Amino acid sequence: MERLEDSSITAVPGFLAAGVHCGLKSAGEKDLALILSSVPCRAAGVFTANRVKAAPVLYDQEVLARNPHSLRAVVINSGCANACTGKRGLQDARKMAELAAKTLNLPKGELPPVLVMSTGVIGKHLPMEKIAAGIEEASARLSPEGGHDAARSIMTTDTRPKEAALRLELDGATFTIAGMAKGAGMIHPQMATMLSLIVTDAAISTGALQNALRQAVEVSFNMVTVDGDTSTNDTVLILANGLAGNPEIARENSPGYRAFKDGLIQVATDLSKMIARDGEGATKFVEINVHGAPSFVAARQAAKAIANSSLVKTALYGEDANWGRVLAAVGYSGVEIDPDRLALWFGDLQLVKGGQPFNVDEARAKAILSHKDISITVDLGLGPAQATVWTCDLSHEYVSINAHYRT
Amino acid sequence: MERLEDSSITAVPGFLAAGVHCGLKSAGEKDLALILSSVPCRAAGVFTANRVKAAPVLYDQEVLARNPHSLRAVVINSGCANACTGKRGLQDARKMAELAAKTLNLPKGELPPVLVMSTGVIGKHLPMEKIAAGIEEASARLSPEGGHDAARSIMTTDTRPKEAALRLELDGATFTIAGMAKGAGMIHPQMATMLSLIVTDAAISTGALQNALRQAVEVSFNMVTVDGDTSTNDTVLILANGLAGNPEIARENSPGYRAFKDGLIQVATDLSKMIARDGEGATKFVEINVHGAPSFVAARQAAKAIANSSLVKTALYGEDANWGRVLAAVGYSGVEIDPDRLALWFGDLQLVKGGQPFNVDEARAKAILSHKDISITVDLGLGPAQATVWTCDLSHEYVSINAHYRT
Repeated sequence: MERLEDSSITAVPGFLAAGVHCGLKSAGEKDLALILSSVPCRAAGVFTANRVKAAPVLYDQEVLARNPHSLRAVVINSGCANACTGKRGLQDARKMAELAAKTLNLPKGELPPVLVMSTGVIGKHLPMEKIAAGIEEASARLSPEGGHDAARSIMTTDTRPKEAALRLELDGATFTIAGMAKGAGMIHPQMATMLSLIVTDAAISTGALQNALRQAVEVSFNMVTVDGDTSTNDTVLILANGLAGNPEIARENSPGYRAFKDGLIQVATDLSKMIARDGEGATKFVEINVHGAPSFVAARQAAKAIANSSLVKTALYGEDANWGRVLAAVGYSGVEIDPDRLALWFGDLQLVKGGQPFNVDEARAKAILSHKDISITVDLGLGPAQATVWTCDLSHEYVSINAHYRT
Repeated sequence: MERLEDSSITAVPGFLAAGVHCGLKSAGEKDLALILSSVPCRAAGVFTANRVKAAPVLYDQEVLARNPHSLRAVVINSGCANACTGKRGLQDARKMAELAAKTLNLPKGELPPVLVMSTGVIGKHLPMEKIAAGIEEASARLSPEGGHDAARSIMTTDTRPKEAALRLELDGATFTIAGMAKGAGMIHPQMATMLSLIVTDAAISTGALQNALRQAVEVSFNMVTVDGDTSTNDTVLILANGLAGNPEIARENSPGYRAFKDGLIQVATDLSKMIARDGEGATKFVEINVHGAPSFVAARQAAKAIANSSLVKTALYGEDANWGRVLAAVGYSGVEIDPDRLALWFGDLQLVKGGQPFNVDEARAKAILSHKDISITVDLGLGPAQATVWTCDLSHEYVSINAHYRT
């Protein structure tokens, strides 16, 4: 497994991309991405668990249920989430796919072979004239170097694009997996994160692709939280065009499936960490490890309670080793615990043993918290399971960004 | 039912109180409260659901299990929570009760007739010499006008004391219920709020007292959230000294019980709203109403999801009518919904009908959000149940307070 220097989605053979400005964002930044595969792709998706689902989520679910075997393109806009927009929103999502299919001369079927994603303000209708113009322009600019532009076009409050790519050898064939993602706020994915598109040239059945994606998302995007708010638009899509020429991956217990899944987990984990690191207003990247749990589910629940605690996150921002807030979060997480067995570390410095302060070295704790990357480890002392969650601190800047997001 | 102008706990006949500075807080503010009843009281308590329970919580639970019939005093300190302090913490809590019993010449039993509460930093041991000196001084200053001082002594990041009192007529007797509370951060009570002491001169059995307290807490303190963090120290205690001379309230279906419970709910609700209004860094008091729910539990769950959303709270701080975030929170709350039936109001201005924007008047929405008191109403359109939750906005000041709480 080898990480690629060119980490854009166009590092994968057969994919063209473009990113343009069509007027959804005010200051001239790119706001529409178009991705085209030269051949039909197998596709799979994982979507938000929010019961208020945005129109593009509902639309893609329909497309993937009817035709996961021969997808050709993805259109993504930022600046407007097309969520809470009712019937007209669904029509707009479909129209967006149809406009792309028409511009790209793709075969017409009952549904065009195009998936759509939207991100931005909730409760506004898509300005379809701008979208149409954007698709037209993006289509003219499609290129095998357009991946970076596409990654930039899907950003909202992100401060930088998020891309990851790697190459694997399998049965004599070489294949590539590359992905891009966006997301900085409203990040507490329960099925996926706000938006991510992953592409590969591996030959893989749609069933194996869907399973691998679900398994990878569970240990990557679903382990990120910025603010505990689960978006209406969370979507991870994967397209596989089969150009690598490997024997088709189909069975879940095959070496090929395991190799592909490991690679997919790596790309998804890289993107997930980038999202936590670029959380709205973040000054710290924080890894929360909970071990000694009776089950993975319990470990994750405790880790997420810590990661979502406003009090823990503000203390990290202030570089204050207020470990009592970490134990309080574990205590209210709902997970079964024995308070007298709890142990806690900031970095490699142990602060709590047997539920009580342990040789607390405030100066060293402070020094550890002064770094940009921080790890917190809690041992429940009850079992063999562990989980890792990625998050960031809660800063003044988070409040500033979100107090006036729409203006 | 009549609200009293003197809202202190010493408005209730038979109760003396004092508040002093004994050195737990740095700047000379009062940090120890002592409350004495001239006659033995029935007592009841409701405590935190956090599995990491502070020593005073564990101690009071033991006292109330063994002797809820003849309590005489309560000692409360701020500045140190005596939480995550192991065996020594439990010994300190008991010592605190013993010191008070000795100083006040109370009858010695297996356990002294004294309850204790602590609030402040987690993970530090109580400085027992200061506590002892404080109890001695407070004992000398006990007075029927000492209630306000006591309320001031239990504050941490609170900006003002929280007191409420009212008088009721019952069967020819007049009785009084008065309470004080503290709490501004780590407020998401699952059984009670950080600290509240309520006293009454009603004659009531311990069973009826415990039931009335539990029912009142459920619709008052348990409906407040500041930051979604449930404290290790949450405690509500009630003492009833029986001096009002009413026939003892014992049966739950009696008019006396209902009158007492209604009064208790009123005092507890007043205190709860004061806590939300004085939430750390709060610039707005926010009432969240969810109706049209299939059950009270569902309504509360949806209302709490809105009230705990960092994105909703920052938008309110910024006076931005970003109602999409409210619907997103309802969507991830876990409550069954039909997106096409959702309706939403800011104040009396409807913004959403049938899950979609409804004649959105941004200027009026902005004007409504410019007030200090804001109400948000969501109608799920599914049933007859409703719930109300009280919270505040999330401001820059919340981050400032909590980034450096221990320094």
